[in-house]
Amino acid sequence: MQSTMMNMPLNITSVMTFADKVYGDVEVVSVTADNPRHRYTYSDAFKRVRKLANALAKLGLKQSDVIGTLAWNDYRHLELYYAISCSGMVCHTVNPRLFDEQIEYIIDHAEDQWVFTDVAFVGTLERLQNLLPDVKGFVILTDEANMPKTSLRNAVCYETLIADEPETFDWPDLDENSASAICYTSGTTGHPKGVVYSHRSTILHCYASSLPDAFGLSRYDVTMPIVPMFHVNGWGLVYSAPMAGAKLVMPGPKMGDGEALAKLINEEGVTASAGVPTVWLALLQYLEKSGERVDGLERLTVGGSACPLSIFDAFRDKYDVTVQHAWGMTEMSPLGTYNRVADDAGETMSKADFDTARLRQGRPIYGVELRIVDEDGQELPWDGESSGAVQVRGPFITDHYHKREHSAAEDGWFETGDVAFMDKDSQMQITDRTKDVIKSGGEWISSIELENCAVDHPAIAEAAVIGVAHPKWTERPLLLAVVNEGAEISKEEMLHWFDGKVAKWWIPADCVFVSELPHTATGKLSKKDLRDEYQNFAWNDA
Amino acid sequence: MQSTMMNMPLNITSVMTFADKVYGDVEVVSVTADNPRHRYTYSDAFKRVRKLANALAKLGLKQSDVIGTLAWNDYRHLELYYAISCSGMVCHTVNPRLFDEQIEYIIDHAEDQWVFTDVAFVGTLERLQNLLPDVKGFVILTDEANMPKTSLRNAVCYETLIADEPETFDWPDLDENSASAICYTSGTTGHPKGVVYSHRSTILHCYASSLPDAFGLSRYDVTMPIVPMFHVNGWGLVYSAPMAGAKLVMPGPKMGDGEALAKLINEEGVTASAGVPTVWLALLQYLEKSGERVDGLERLTVGGSACPLSIFDAFRDKYDVTVQHAWGMTEMSPLGTYNRVADDAGETMSKADFDTARLRQGRPIYGVELRIVDEDGQELPWDGESSGAVQVRGPFITDHYHKREHSAAEDGWFETGDVAFMDKDSQMQITDRTKDVIKSGGEWISSIELENCAVDHPAIAEAAVIGVAHPKWTERPLLLAVVNEGAEISKEEMLHWFDGKVAKWWIPADCVFVSELPHTATGKLSKKDLRDEYQNFAWNDA
Repeated sequence: MQSTMMNMPLNITSVMTFADKVYGDVEVVSVTADNPRHRYTYSDAFKRVRKLANALAKLGLKQSDVIGTLAWNDYRHLELYYAISCSGMVCHTVNPRLFDEQIEYIIDHAEDQWVFTDVAFVGTLERLQNLLPDVKGFVILTDEANMPKTSLRNAVCYETLIADEPETFDWPDLDENSASAICYTSGTTGHPKGVVYSHRSTILHCYASSLPDAFGLSRYDVTMPIVPMFHVNGWGLVYSAPMAGAKLVMPGPKMGDGEALAKLINEEGVTASAGVPTVWLALLQYLEKSGERVDGLERLTVGGSACPLSIFDAFRDKYDVTVQHAWGMTEMSPLGTYNRVADDAGETMSKADFDTARLRQGRPIYGVELRIVDEDGQELPWDGESSGAVQVRGPFITDHYHKREHSAAEDGWFETGDVAFMDKDSQMQITDRTKDVIKSGGEWISSIELENCAVDHPAIAEAAVIGVAHPKWTERPLLLAVVNEGAEISKEEMLHWFDGKVAKWWIPADCVFVSELPHTATGKLSKKDLRDEYQNFAWNDA
Repeated sequence: MQSTMMNMPLNITSVMTFADKVYGDVEVVSVTADNPRHRYTYSDAFKRVRKLANALAKLGLKQSDVIGTLAWNDYRHLELYYAISCSGMVCHTVNPRLFDEQIEYIIDHAEDQWVFTDVAFVGTLERLQNLLPDVKGFVILTDEANMPKTSLRNAVCYETLIADEPETFDWPDLDENSASAICYTSGTTGHPKGVVYSHRSTILHCYASSLPDAFGLSRYDVTMPIVPMFHVNGWGLVYSAPMAGAKLVMPGPKMGDGEALAKLINEEGVTASAGVPTVWLALLQYLEKSGERVDGLERLTVGGSACPLSIFDAFRDKYDVTVQHAWGMTEMSPLGTYNRVADDAGETMSKADFDTARLRQGRPIYGVELRIVDEDGQELPWDGESSGAVQVRGPFITDHYHKREHSAAEDGWFETGDVAFMDKDSQMQITDRTKDVIKSGGEWISSIELENCAVDHPAIAEAAVIGVAHPKWTERPLLLAVVNEGAEISKEEMLHWFDGKVAKWWIPADCVFVSELPHTATGKLSKKDLRDEYQNFAWNDA
């Protein structure tokens, strides 16, 4: 039987027209290089989006064309998001922190036609432009007064580009499955891989991530996404804030500046923010040093990597702010799980249970199917113990990477590369990365848990645990540790430290003290390098 | 450019499998005719849903077949919702309060193959079964111990039907645009008209209506939908509660019983409920009489008709419960607007402004595009003054009615039949029904506002205002009023009552005192009858 419902596509244009009409008066506040506090309304924003759409058309750009951006979180970047995607073009947010070769690779691979850039990244593009002959020109995101001298070809000032364009634009009808944006994920090896979002996936992610037990944005929230807009569309908040009618505060280049963030929170009335742990540490350090408060702030979402308990505690106990763990990745739009513990959990649970509960990565949001599987691909129970590879599927999860035909999914399930168990409350606890997990005697050992345990020792500054081949056990864990300056510890003392803290057979079989550990460009431990270096490590018992 | 996202359909099956896995331990509590307090978990529910799906297949039912239900809100009705829709069949919830001819008409029109009924409605169906030769059989929603003697053909006891079926079922892949449910809307004239929901529209409505500024259901909520499941899928809460992981409490036949509702609220920890104003009045009256409290209750959604301010005030002032207006209709799945005033609005606004704000029907939810238009179809501004016909469109709004080929929408917009203005805060205020509005001198007069003003007079029990043809002004308002027993009022006094309360040209041109006013079967004023009766009313000045 046919449904009688209207056939209406899901598209980003509808977020824009909805917010323009229903929440037109709500403010968007930005810090930019040329303005310490720019403010206007969603209605003002979308008026300029229409001017920009006219300008894009005038540049000769057409549907399906890809446009690159190198920019911080501010109102001009917001305008680009909507003008590009709603014109049927594809917004390619380039991470300006990548190495030159990577920036060159992804601009070339995505086939960017024009690149819009903050003044700060003009130098990078000047170095690269001759390697990018297909880029037709560059638009600098500033006004004439702040326009730099530049050798970029066809360089145009953004404000000049849109100044005389009409304030109306006839938005095209778009297939909901057409591409809206592309974001590259850079692994530790190989070229970055592109994930192409559709209008449909963006809207569904927007709905799912806005539910009360996820970001839960409301008309009465003021949200400040501190996660860069070049990281998975700022976790989608750039779409979900106008959808909810939440006031949007964008810190521009001030994302790591605790003082600037505290000022924005207090002066703009921020209630909800989102970012990686280091951002919250910076804010916390500033607050503790200055004695300032953030009384209007209610909740902080933390993702990107596991957040230490001390940050949860400090915000809760001293500032009455709830920190909430979330987990996801570029391939998931990005939100996969969200941990909203009950408002009264701190009172109804023991401190230990409460701490454990808060540190989980969270429950799957509706729209994400999640399972954990063993090495044979058999699904494991959600019992708080069985640890396995995390696989996901759903309408806002990628099937494959751009221009790589073969599906990245196994039987329709995307391999996240994370290893986790699910507790009986359906909360996920990540224990490792698939490639770092240690396989010993047919069981898995969590390298992360061992590392966390090692650095809990007061003498240890940093630790890495890797699996090294072992004739009897397949692999055994080897601990590599950096000792704090001035501290002393013996190998035996170190290994005894694990007694009673982890299962006996998890205890590292040996330990090597090193002066430093190798890191990737983004600051993560490079276990691949360690595995190469120690692949022939001689076990005592082998 | 092609997106790289997975191609995953939106369907109700995914709500079931999600809730089964993530929220399997959450409770579902029901009152039924055969059990004063049945309780089990979502996981138990979906196990029985799979048994039921096997039973449906065994009855020879196949995809696209329509199955009727005549049932109150309880766990067996919940099981039917999921087993039918997820099998690819269509769940037709029949309103058992309709007249016999209407029940017969809609069962025949929807082509119900089998009908599942509560014991309470067996008599109705026995009267009608010979007029419904295409219905192959009837399943009685009870166990053998409570099975009534019945002449219904092929009568089967529900518990017996599913008892021996397997607990596994291989759910079919469904096109997201395929029909999931059908619901008839009964106007005051003509046959009831069927609205057919799709899996896609159901999921999108589920997302949109679950946002924080709408129903806002969370894992930590306990929700009790008091709106019948035969009214637009219980406002969708039967889908959104498991999606959110909220505990679900279903009052069965006790929907109008204040005492039973209070007991359920307190014993089951209900935090959020939804229903029509008369339900809240019944609860309030019970609470005031008994002196009981409902301390865990946080919010009540009220829809179906405008809720009097006295109910808002009583719940807020005496019981610390927030009443929230919502507006929608069968054709909209049903939610169109929701009024969540800010938590602190009562403190920051004057009482008058706060009252006005709370009584609005609310802001459109994302997924519903809403506009108001004048008689020429020109869109009107949202200025708090311009009143016009309310039109909507969106992916969970109907385009037409079942088996009526022509679109019910005008240029893609569905005519709601309501007249409203939008205030500057994007809150809708309904002022009339399109068919009841009075057109005078090229302007519209709200019959509802005049009626509300009239009944504010202490001598008036009930009032109706209709437009009657006038040679100079097209129409003028005529007031028909019922005087309270023992009260006295003159025509002049009555008409002067409006002075200063409404615009001068709105004041009824004449008044007739009547002993009673005509009502429809559902208790609404029948203005059509009044218009017929007074169509030749002789104006003094004409």
